[in-house]
Amino acid sequence: MAIPELQQQLREFVAERDWQRYQTPKNLVMALTGEVGELTEIFQWLTSDESASVMNTPERAEHVRDEIADVLAYLLRLCDVLGFDPEAALAEKMTKNAAKYPVPVQLPESSV
Amino acid sequence: MAIPELQQQLREFVAERDWQRYQTPKNLVMALTGEVGELTEIFQWLTSDESASVMNTPERAEHVRDEIADVLAYLLRLCDVLGFDPEAALAEKMTKNAAKYPVPVQLPESSV
Amino acid sequence: MAIPELQQQLREFVAERDWQRYQTPKNLVMALTGEVGELTEIFQWLTSDESASVMNTPERAEHVRDEIADVLAYLLRLCDVLGFDPEAALAEKMTKNAAKYPVPVQLPESSV
Amino acid sequence: MAIPELQQQLREFVAERDWQRYQTPKNLVMALTGEVGELTEIFQWLTSDESASVMNTPERAEHVRDEIADVLAYLLRLCDVLGFDPEAALAEKMTKNAAKYPVPVQLPESSV
Repeated sequence: MAIPELQQQLREFVAERDWQRYQTPKNLVMALTGEVGELTEIFQWLTSDESASVMNTPERAEHVRDEIADVLAYLLRLCDVLGFDPEAALAEKMTKNAAKYPVPVQLPESSV
Repeated sequence: MAIPELQQQLREFVAERDWQRYQTPKNLVMALTGEVGELTEIFQWLTSDESASVMNTPERAEHVRDEIADVLAYLLRLCDVLGFDPEAALAEKMTKNAAKYPVPVQLPESSV
Repeated sequence: MAIPELQQQLREFVAERDWQRYQTPKNLVMALTGEVGELTEIFQWLTSDESASVMNTPERAEHVRDEIADVLAYLLRLCDVLGFDPEAALAEKMTKNAAKYPVPVQLPESSV
Repeated sequence: MAIPELQQQLREFVAERDWQRYQTPKNLVMALTGEVGELTEIFQWLTSDESASVMNTPERAEHVRDEIADVLAYLLRLCDVLGFDPEAALAEKMTKNAAKYPVPVQLPESSV
């Protein structure tokens, strides 16, 4: 499934519950913050190594998946309410980032 | 484009710059926080009404798109490093949410 | 009570539970994020007007006080672990901010 | 200096610039998020060990102090606008935490 279909599903979910009036861009940014906070709480006392094996514990894995799903849901809702395509925004940003952080030039072996 | 292709592009971008060693799940969660913070700064002094028309100013619109792209990029990287599909996680979470927040029963008009 | 005494109490609380090893600066920054996320969740769907009367509901007021206390606790712990005085840091920052945002010159009425 | 004096200074700073109308509780919570995001960006790619020596680099130390000062400033403003004393809130929360996380019973040596 592509991003527009996910957004369509979320839009219907919100409309069925009459939640549109709460989902202003400002409020959605705050909801995003709340979910990132919950995600952060899973990782805050883990070492970086422990964080890399967090999916090995089924209960913790489900918790991580749920929180990331919540972050993604609010992010997609925010783009939908603001009226732009997050995939296009990401493509443009990656072009900017590629210019900002050029790949180190790799000299061909023969030139060394 | 679907999410796996976006993740593939991001994976290559990171690999070309040899940034994998920095991108532990713990660090990526922090990077996500940083980008959500930048997004929040755009909206913090706006009223909810002003936030709804933020895309009408071209410069501000580009800023919003860029910050949301950064949030999405780190979110997709995090899922990639943790080894799960965010779309599947979102579908599962929406099923849980539908059970948690049932749609109010709509009585047919004739029954009133 | 001044800030150093609050930090002393927090230091003892942590030491009695042998939590020092978890409280690296990096981890404390994440803990701060988690608590700010919880605080944000209280305010995310409120209008700005509703947010201004949040302390009128006793249950909500206690929730706000608790979350702000948690944010303050981790902030004071972070300064303690990093070894600097937050009050001095705030005084220096206010001097910088006063230079960055000068007070608008108020002409005396007679000069208008 | 105690917390009420710091709040008094911040209150004057805001009043001189006529910023009160922007500083609703909801907006101040977002401003807090933005500053925690900036603080997080300093630490996100550091290991926990590197984070513990972040104050050894003068430029980085100043950056950390500035961002923590900003977090503290918005936190104190938020308490001021909401009309409660953060120190009292912290004392109450520590009492709750002490009950929630009791100190492990230390058996006297003779009983071992």
